[in-house]
Amino acid sequence: MRTYLDCIPCFFKQALKAARLAGANEHVQKEILDSLASEVPNFRLSSSPPEMGRIVYKLVREITGEEDPFKKVKDEYNKVALDIYPNLKEKVAHSKDRLLAAIRLALAGNVIDFGVDNPFNLEGEIEDVFEKDFAVFDYQEFREAVNSTKQILYLADNAGEVVFDRILIEELAKKVIYVVRDKPVINDALIEDAKFCGIDKIARIISNGCDVPGTVLSLCSTDFLSLYEKAKVIISKGQGNFEGLAGSDNAPIFFLFKAKCSVIANDIGCEVGDIVLKYNCK
Amino acid sequence: MRTYLDCIPCFFKQALKAARLAGANEHVQKEILDSLASEVPNFRLSSSPPEMGRIVYKLVREITGEEDPFKKVKDEYNKVALDIYPNLKEKVAHSKDRLLAAIRLALAGNVIDFGVDNPFNLEGEIEDVFEKDFAVFDYQEFREAVNSTKQILYLADNAGEVVFDRILIEELAKKVIYVVRDKPVINDALIEDAKFCGIDKIARIISNGCDVPGTVLSLCSTDFLSLYEKAKVIISKGQGNFEGLAGSDNAPIFFLFKAKCSVIANDIGCEVGDIVLKYNCK
Repeated sequence: MRTYLDCIPCFFKQALKAARLAGANEHVQKEILDSLASEVPNFRLSSSPPEMGRIVYKLVREITGEEDPFKKVKDEYNKVALDIYPNLKEKVAHSKDRLLAAIRLALAGNVIDFGVDNPFNLEGEIEDVFEKDFAVFDYQEFREAVNSTKQILYLADNAGEVVFDRILIEELAKKVIYVVRDKPVINDALIEDAKFCGIDKIARIISNGCDVPGTVLSLCSTDFLSLYEKAKVIISKGQGNFEGLAGSDNAPIFFLFKAKCSVIANDIGCEVGDIVLKYNCK
Repeated sequence: MRTYLDCIPCFFKQALKAARLAGANEHVQKEILDSLASEVPNFRLSSSPPEMGRIVYKLVREITGEEDPFKKVKDEYNKVALDIYPNLKEKVAHSKDRLLAAIRLALAGNVIDFGVDNPFNLEGEIEDVFEKDFAVFDYQEFREAVNSTKQILYLADNAGEVVFDRILIEELAKKVIYVVRDKPVINDALIEDAKFCGIDKIARIISNGCDVPGTVLSLCSTDFLSLYEKAKVIISKGQGNFEGLAGSDNAPIFFLFKAKCSVIANDIGCEVGDIVLKYNCK
């Protein structure tokens, strides 16, 4: 997906939020915004938002010297989500359609996102997600694809959300390769988050080789790319992965995310807050 | 009031909105954001937000060649407000405290603001404003000040809102000088708006001599300044005038506005959406 001009004010907001989380004083915060401003003329709108996002968070890291400003909130939400894991399992166990219930919970977990502007209410989301209609609902294709494959490539999104992914992976009951980011960016999940949330017990964990808040193939490692190219079914969680991959090729991807800003909602023709299960090849 | 770093993303949003209203294509919109980005390192946070706002809208005017991008919405809201003027008068007539009702309506009209991020619902606001508590309510001081003066300097804010100011001016029943901006900036009221809304029948209309979306004394005309310095009672409508004047001196100003963004709400210690009648000399 291309970047829209509306993303530019949002990049400044994100830079400011990250700078504050990194403990920067107002002088350093201003220095970060000034540096970001000097990058704006170089922004190509044909690039995807995560490519720009990478620049934003790299600036914050370089200027503050803080490698992982979101470490604390990642740890916090890993714990919060693990604490409710038994309740989530219970919800699935009592559902008529267990796979769909697990998909809905994976979507609820997608609100744990410190890159977007809106605050979130995880508990409320877990309730609401069962009442919502999908804006795009390629569920039949999803079931068929999952049933006809032995292995699934699962592109992760955020820390904490990983526990919700675990619920879905357990329902898929397939061999899964779970792909996280290589280096800290926003609250995106790293190998340590995946392990902390217990993914190592049910799937193979790898990194995609980069520090982009999304999946941008041109920046990923060759190891990841060889798995990606061979994959028969890919589940892509979250906006960042959608923004990086949508429209880029015809891989057999199921995009699973909640639309969290007007730019992405306009791009796919839904409302902010809508939930989406979208097959790339349809 | 000083500018906060949170204002910077907002300036980019405002530039984009104004550029689109001016009919700029995406290429020109990007040129405007690039030019604004090049100004960011020069922004002094000790300046007030309207001083920065002036730069934003000047850029849009210069690059698009469109002198008054908000002309259409100003005309529209002047008409909308004039249409409901008889109903507003009716509301005041049926109030126990006519002056307070007129103040509340003047606050309702303050939502007609195309410089802020939130959409507004004028009809809903007119209902809600009668149910709201004031976050700051220096009403007694206001009554006393109004009763003890012959002349009031009234600093206007936006087109359309002017009709709501007219309701208040009619209740004040004093000699009023109504001060508007000299040149187009956002949807701020100009002399033509004040006349269209009938202020010329009840007050003297002057411009403050500048194109700032607020009152910044260092940029105002000497004619306005001489009236300002002699004024015994000043009513300052809206955020922009507050941002420009608050803390700058001890003039006998009553700030009357709705807090429309988190920056101003944090600055005065209230919530976004709160209504304020604040005496500067208290």
